[in-house]
Amino acid sequence: MSNETFNVAVVGSTGAVGEQILRLLEERNFPIKTLKLLSSARSAGSKLKFKGEDVTVEEAKPESFEGVQIALFSAGGDVSKALVPEAIKRGTVCIDNTSAFRMDPTAPLVVPEVNAEKIFEHNGVIANPNCSTIQMVAALKPLQDRYGLKRIIVSTYQAVSGSGAKAIAELNRQTKAIVNGEPVNPDVLPVASLPVKHQIAFNAVPQIDKFTDNGFTYEEMKMINETKKIMGDESIQVTATCVRIPVVYGHSESVYVELGSEYDLAEVRSLLENAPGLTVIDDPANQAYPLATDAAGKNDVFVGRLRRDLDSPTGLNLWIVSDNLLKGAAWNAVQIAEIIAARSQQA
Amino acid sequence: MSNETFNVAVVGSTGAVGEQILRLLEERNFPIKTLKLLSSARSAGSKLKFKGEDVTVEEAKPESFEGVQIALFSAGGDVSKALVPEAIKRGTVCIDNTSAFRMDPTAPLVVPEVNAEKIFEHNGVIANPNCSTIQMVAALKPLQDRYGLKRIIVSTYQAVSGSGAKAIAELNRQTKAIVNGEPVNPDVLPVASLPVKHQIAFNAVPQIDKFTDNGFTYEEMKMINETKKIMGDESIQVTATCVRIPVVYGHSESVYVELGSEYDLAEVRSLLENAPGLTVIDDPANQAYPLATDAAGKNDVFVGRLRRDLDSPTGLNLWIVSDNLLKGAAWNAVQIAEIIAARSQQA
Repeated sequence: MSNETFNVAVVGSTGAVGEQILRLLEERNFPIKTLKLLSSARSAGSKLKFKGEDVTVEEAKPESFEGVQIALFSAGGDVSKALVPEAIKRGTVCIDNTSAFRMDPTAPLVVPEVNAEKIFEHNGVIANPNCSTIQMVAALKPLQDRYGLKRIIVSTYQAVSGSGAKAIAELNRQTKAIVNGEPVNPDVLPVASLPVKHQIAFNAVPQIDKFTDNGFTYEEMKMINETKKIMGDESIQVTATCVRIPVVYGHSESVYVELGSEYDLAEVRSLLENAPGLTVIDDPANQAYPLATDAAGKNDVFVGRLRRDLDSPTGLNLWIVSDNLLKGAAWNAVQIAEIIAARSQQA
Repeated sequence: MSNETFNVAVVGSTGAVGEQILRLLEERNFPIKTLKLLSSARSAGSKLKFKGEDVTVEEAKPESFEGVQIALFSAGGDVSKALVPEAIKRGTVCIDNTSAFRMDPTAPLVVPEVNAEKIFEHNGVIANPNCSTIQMVAALKPLQDRYGLKRIIVSTYQAVSGSGAKAIAELNRQTKAIVNGEPVNPDVLPVASLPVKHQIAFNAVPQIDKFTDNGFTYEEMKMINETKKIMGDESIQVTATCVRIPVVYGHSESVYVELGSEYDLAEVRSLLENAPGLTVIDDPANQAYPLATDAAGKNDVFVGRLRRDLDSPTGLNLWIVSDNLLKGAAWNAVQIAEIIAARSQQA
């Protein structure tokens, strides 16, 4: 293994996910030769700290990628659609956090615990899946390998940070207004660009992203389509209901799976306990189970409330929680970058 | 139909549900001859308003039920277990909001929209189901009648008011503490009588009530067992995950059903729109769907997010919301009382 280091760019470095990517690159001591922080013109010129040094943020342009070996994108789908092809032209391997390339059949969609081997089939871009999909497939992979997966029915309890800094501010603002007996005036959620807004404080809003023509939201369709692609099996039946709740960090998911065969619950627990990236918290006697407030700030996916469907010998209930900005975005992207770097160092 | 009026007692009249029962008896102009407000010794002596008059609350004792024709109980399971038999001895018909008699095979478990005909099979007590069960079966009944029901998979988003006034106060207190940057100190939820407490503000807690030996909570087992009893079909497969979220009033439910046959989605919508006690809110183009904050204070059950499972021609997703203190408790009980009174007036 060489000591090769890499020219790295982070696109969207001033956003909520970009900030976590920088923190993780530093914490993991990623083998960086040069680090370029890129953003929209609006944020260009601002300075961010990396390993104690000030780094000036530059506007992301096609030329920015000259000489860049690895770029991590999290600046929105439009930026990725415009700049990923430019970066690829210049020889950059792009890890894209947006939905721009996820369903592109030529782009691998990767959760390292599930399908790391797909990374090297890339044609310049590796897509990072949707946050709510990542934590679910990471938890279900050991069960797919052992029993097969026939069907997934998932209901989510998603944090506002998935909708960005403005949504976090909106929840804080609405909460303070209600506590002080003032009017709430929803302004951002459920979807900033749509006309109707709903109160998120002390509420449960069953809409994340816009609606598609079939009555599902885009968020729900992401969970359905991305799950099949990542797990490499179009025959898995998936249906999803995605709900925003007043939590700041950490998506929770109530997941029902129909396995391909009958199972032993102790074996399920053992498979999950021994799987990479998973932490099982499942001790009813001590009221221990995964909680969003405990998962916040951690890289792992937390699994608990393991219960057999009393009416179906192949049915299993799970409660899956993870920090949507970390394993759901920044950490998964940095994991992919580490695998790319390690392969190059071994070559 | 006669103008017969009734001697009525409300047990637990000072509690959150009791308060709503009184309000509804007044609003519905229930045919009351005499009204007795009963409570624990602790609350006895306090005065409550009914139709502008002060009524003094008395301690509930066996003798309290002498001459009482209809009693509505919502003072906890222990009070019902002790006093319902005493009331029955004295000829009182008891409508019990607690879990004390729900699974008693001799006690009807009634949601009027589903199985009103069972009311008159009572042996003195009619049980009011669990709040989260009531709203679900009310919404599913028209589908059961038309298509049959094979399986229900439900994940709940339950309000803290289901755990009483102390839980509401706890959510308020924790929210203010977090807004002010102070420590949270959980004290009531998830279960006041258990040692471990978890933060409910800005969190999702997958425990309502204690755990049973099979890994499900009692709340989940109520949904499973009560649904089969009310719908009159032990062959319906039911599994449930019950979760407390930081909402004050109104339970939301993500419900997946496998119907007995293929269905037409427009017909499903029409069946629900024409069913008693249901309001369909399902207009994705206008971002309209049921919300806890809209359902609070209303008697109806609200249904929306109707979507076909894209991978199963018999699978249907629904989002069901209702005020847990009203249809989930007080209103369902008062509906039963009205049916009993009307039958007596017609006799």
